[in-house]
Amino acid sequence: MNAEPLSKQLFSDTKNASQLVRSYQKIAVTIDCVIFGYQDGQLKVLLIKSDLENYTEQWSLLGNEITHTETTDEAAYRVLKQRTGLSDVFLDQVKCFSTPDRHPGGRVVTVAYCSLINIAHHQLTCTDNDLHWHPVQDEIDWAFDHKEIFETCYGWLQKRIQEHPLGFSLLPEKFSLRELQGVYEAILGMKLDRRNFRKKFFTMDFLEDTGEMELNVAHRPGKLYTFNYKKYESGKKDWVGIDF
Amino acid sequence: MNAEPLSKQLFSDTKNASQLVRSYQKIAVTIDCVIFGYQDGQLKVLLIKSDLENYTEQWSLLGNEITHTETTDEAAYRVLKQRTGLSDVFLDQVKCFSTPDRHPGGRVVTVAYCSLINIAHHQLTCTDNDLHWHPVQDEIDWAFDHKEIFETCYGWLQKRIQEHPLGFSLLPEKFSLRELQGVYEAILGMKLDRRNFRKKFFTMDFLEDTGEMELNVAHRPGKLYTFNYKKYESGKKDWVGIDF
Repeated sequence: MNAEPLSKQLFSDTKNASQLVRSYQKIAVTIDCVIFGYQDGQLKVLLIKSDLENYTEQWSLLGNEITHTETTDEAAYRVLKQRTGLSDVFLDQVKCFSTPDRHPGGRVVTVAYCSLINIAHHQLTCTDNDLHWHPVQDEIDWAFDHKEIFETCYGWLQKRIQEHPLGFSLLPEKFSLRELQGVYEAILGMKLDRRNFRKKFFTMDFLEDTGEMELNVAHRPGKLYTFNYKKYESGKKDWVGIDF
Repeated sequence: MNAEPLSKQLFSDTKNASQLVRSYQKIAVTIDCVIFGYQDGQLKVLLIKSDLENYTEQWSLLGNEITHTETTDEAAYRVLKQRTGLSDVFLDQVKCFSTPDRHPGGRVVTVAYCSLINIAHHQLTCTDNDLHWHPVQDEIDWAFDHKEIFETCYGWLQKRIQEHPLGFSLLPEKFSLRELQGVYEAILGMKLDRRNFRKKFFTMDFLEDTGEMELNVAHRPGKLYTFNYKKYESGKKDWVGIDF
């Protein structure tokens, strides 16, 4: 909690909006993008080298300031495109981070954005500053407070993939249950019980048997399914979703 | 999407952190608190008059700038206490709002915080600027973009109350199912089917029959229950929570 005395001027002594905003302390505002990528059963995150001497050899998220003429959303899409070439990625705002000493150069408040994509479907057309996909399981030497931002976004993603069918966008249109389980295991970072996993998905009743089987696989070929988005959309929970 | 040319200086030409932060555009950052209150079966929101001449006779949320030495969390707790006297309220960060023209006085980025309390348990010790609890069902003439911020936080609350047992903090320790349903109906803003509602809660198995009945009520006395927080905490969903 803050120790600012309660005697501080509470209500502004001006009724003029411009005067009021001029009286406010000004702060640099940045965005940071946590882009998760799925590839060959592995979850990765996009990392880049910082330009700063404080962080030589350390890794940072994709970030930059927001300008006076753009929203944080617009800044996030702009920075992502500029630094990676990616322009067809949906970003979700996750959280604002504002510890006063989080940036070594002065006060910087940052807003974190998150996304999950299939690496094979999205080409990085710019890889300056050692931009690369890094497995989330490997140790990462983070610059700034980016470990905290990464972990917050990773937790957000792990919760979200249990509540929304976003994992299916990582799979081919027709997929096996083994592939589906691979997506969940990679993102949740744990092995899942095969039978419980299958039961759970069949209970939800959004998987459709295509009548086809896997081809050219090293294991016993499994059935191929599609995800019925139409059924999912029309059956979305309303209040009866109360469930905790 | 932003029209900023891609030729803009992408990577900083300095390796010095302080120089970098000095080069960033500076913006006023504020917080706004959306405090929901429950009273006599009704959901209300805390509103206050803005000081600004732009918004005479309109209503705004509780907000102010964040200073150089505090986080947005600290600013939110400070402003809430200064303007209302409330100091025992838990705030959740919900979302950052940053449309460039959202404040008539210049660029201001704001971070929205949300809470839900029982009005009877929390005394407002300061009511300057016509601070008061306003029923959410009534029309409200909002200042700034506070209608959008309010609606975002209201949607957040309606989702949250279906996923977490936060509604029980609004009730006495022993409550009837009628009272519980009243909480959900007030927050979701709709009538719920009595039988489905009861079935849903008994399925979750966190309600305990106290063996006692309601006293001095105008309707047929109902059984009194308690919520078993211990059972809820120990049974919290892990991955098997996959459910959409």
